[in-house]
Amino acid sequence: MAKTKELEVRLEKTEQQLSLFQKISRLMVRDLSFQEVLKGVVSLVVEFTEGDSCLVYLLDGSELALCAASTPHPAAIGKVRLRLDEGLTGWVARERRLLSISREAYKDPRFKAFSDLLPEDTYEAFLSAPLIARNRVVGVINVQHRLPHQHTGSEMEALTTVGEQVGCVLVLARMSPDALECAELALPSGPVAVKQ
Amino acid sequence: MAKTKELEVRLEKTEQQLSLFQKISRLMVRDLSFQEVLKGVVSLVVEFTEGDSCLVYLLDGSELALCAASTPHPAAIGKVRLRLDEGLTGWVARERRLLSISREAYKDPRFKAFSDLLPEDTYEAFLSAPLIARNRVVGVINVQHRLPHQHTGSEMEALTTVGEQVGCVLVLARMSPDALECAELALPSGPVAVKQ
Repeated sequence: MAKTKELEVRLEKTEQQLSLFQKISRLMVRDLSFQEVLKGVVSLVVEFTEGDSCLVYLLDGSELALCAASTPHPAAIGKVRLRLDEGLTGWVARERRLLSISREAYKDPRFKAFSDLLPEDTYEAFLSAPLIARNRVVGVINVQHRLPHQHTGSEMEALTTVGEQVGCVLVLARMSPDALECAELALPSGPVAVKQ
Repeated sequence: MAKTKELEVRLEKTEQQLSLFQKISRLMVRDLSFQEVLKGVVSLVVEFTEGDSCLVYLLDGSELALCAASTPHPAAIGKVRLRLDEGLTGWVARERRLLSISREAYKDPRFKAFSDLLPEDTYEAFLSAPLIARNRVVGVINVQHRLPHQHTGSEMEALTTVGEQVGCVLVLARMSPDALECAELALPSGPVAVKQ
C-alpha cells in the first residue's frame, strides 16, 4: 500500500509538470503580445509551484528590468532595474545558473533590497532561473515563497525548462512586425538539406 | 499488485513524455543551426514514439518541402515538395489538425505517393501534426510505423506539443544573422509594463 501511495504521488507530480509545459506550449503558439505571454507564464508558474510571487526581469541594454509580476505591482513594474552585478537576480543572469535558497534569502550577501517597491524582498524562499534564447541570457524568472520552503527537484527542473521554453517565444513576441517581416524575407528560397 | 503495476506503467510513460519535452527544450536554447535543430528533433521523436521514420516538411512559399528525416534520404531531401492540397501532409498543414491513421495510410483518399523517393509511402501507420509559430502553420512533422500501430493518447499529445515547441525555435533558427540584428534593434528601449 505504501508503494502504491508513493507511486500515486510521483505520478501526480509528473503529470502536473507535463501539464505546465503543455500549457506554456499553448501560450507559445498563440499570437499573443509580449505582455500577454509574460502574464500567462507568471500565472502558470505560480500555480505550479504554489509560490507567493513570480517575477520576470528582462535584459534591457546592460540592465535587468522588472517586466511582469504574478501579483499587482503597479509601482514596481518598469521602476525596478538591476545591473548584472546587483542582487540575486543579477547573479543568476551573470552566472546563467539556477539559484535555490530555502530560507532567509534576504540575508544572502548577494541580495539587494527594493523593499519600498517590492514586498517580495522580505520573503524567505527564493528560486530563480535564467531565461535563455539562442544560447544567450535574455532575462530571469523568480519564484518566491513568504515562508521557508525547500524547493523540490521537480520545481527546480520545471523552472529551468520554463526558462528555456520562454526565452525563445519572448524573442519572437518582442519583435516588431517589421522585424518579423525582415526575418521572413531572410528565409532560404529553397529547402535546406540536412546532413544524413 | 495490479494497481501498482498499472501506476508504474503510467508513471514511466509520463516521465518519458516529460523527458522528451525537456530534451527538446535543451535543443532550443543551444545556438544550433537550423539543420542541427531539425536533426535533433526527428531523432528525439523517433526515439519517443518507437516509429520507423520521422519526416519534417517546412512551408516554402506555397509548398511544403521535405527538410529533415530520421533515416538517410539523400535523394528525397529537397526533392519531395507538396502543395497544400496534396497528400496527407498537405491536409494537416491546411486543416491545422493532428492526423492519426493506424493502418493502410496509403489507401487514404488524401494520400499522395512518392514511392520512388520515399520508402515511407508503403508504411501502414501515419501520425502527423502541424508545426506552429506565432499562430501560423510553418510546417508539418510526421511519424510513420511500418506495421499497423494504434497511436496512444500520449503519442498524439506529445507530437502536438512538439509541433508547438519546435515551430518557434525554427523561426528563430531560420533567421539570418542580419534578421536577428534587425529584431534586436526593434526591442523597446524601456521595459514594457504589464497590465495588472
